[in-house]
Amino acid sequence: MIERYFEDLQVSDRFESGTFEVTEKGIVDFAYDFDPQPFHLDEAAAEASVFKGLAASGWHTAAAAMRLLVTGGLPFASGIVGLGGEIAWPKPTRPGDTLHVESEIVEITPSRSKPHQGIVTVRGTMFNQNQEAVYVLTAKLLVPRRTTRK
Amino acid sequence: MIERYFEDLQVSDRFESGTFEVTEKGIVDFAYDFDPQPFHLDEAAAEASVFKGLAASGWHTAAAAMRLLVTGGLPFASGIVGLGGEIAWPKPTRPGDTLHVESEIVEITPSRSKPHQGIVTVRGTMFNQNQEAVYVLTAKLLVPRRTTRK
Repeated sequence: MIERYFEDLQVSDRFESGTFEVTEKGIVDFAYDFDPQPFHLDEAAAEASVFKGLAASGWHTAAAAMRLLVTGGLPFASGIVGLGGEIAWPKPTRPGDTLHVESEIVEITPSRSKPHQGIVTVRGTMFNQNQEAVYVLTAKLLVPRRTTRK
Repeated sequence: MIERYFEDLQVSDRFESGTFEVTEKGIVDFAYDFDPQPFHLDEAAAEASVFKGLAASGWHTAAAAMRLLVTGGLPFASGIVGLGGEIAWPKPTRPGDTLHVESEIVEITPSRSKPHQGIVTVRGTMFNQNQEAVYVLTAKLLVPRRTTRK
């Protein structure tokens, strides 16, 4: 895997991640820790909710996407450091889903004040096994140049 | 705690959460599962990184905020169901931080197609013990009316 620095990147560059398997235990464990709402914890309660069945916390979905990005989905040297961005969950993530992320660079902005780095805007879409988008993240990432100190 | 329905909410309504204690173990455990980058896993590696010390994954910070919101920080009937939004991490979250979230309703939009619910936009800011903002989330939430079926 070739790790990219700021000067290696271009708008429209695309990257694809490996896969993440969603389990009922994973959904419930995450929800117990961070999003203890009935529709993320219990199948019967979830059936009666707006989700109509057990659904992962949106933050579990977001965390799964990050795992896919940092384990090869977005091969940036010095890692993936985000300043912020926009997120959306077009559909729920379900037990048994197999997820992957397809990313595209949409904007590249050199920093005037910090010449050793720049901002790269990446739009990542996470799909399930039916090619339905479950999560879209457009994030501004801090990316260093190859020569970071002089 | 009074749980709010759509018709109970007004722009400028404010809510405040309890607190979340950030531990080194919590940071490392989350990172191991979802964001295994050196600056979230190891103090020495983090010292040499852009973070200059161990920092929580931004997604751990986001998940901690969700925990604060669903455990009293945002008392919406039927829970907190987000469609998406904008996020930013102005400063890192560190071991030992005590976090809380202050939320404000910034927009209320009735649904034309679904009269039993509406969209409420909430801006939540999570502060550390020094009143520094570590996370800002502006989210569109699906909120039901009191009478959901007729």
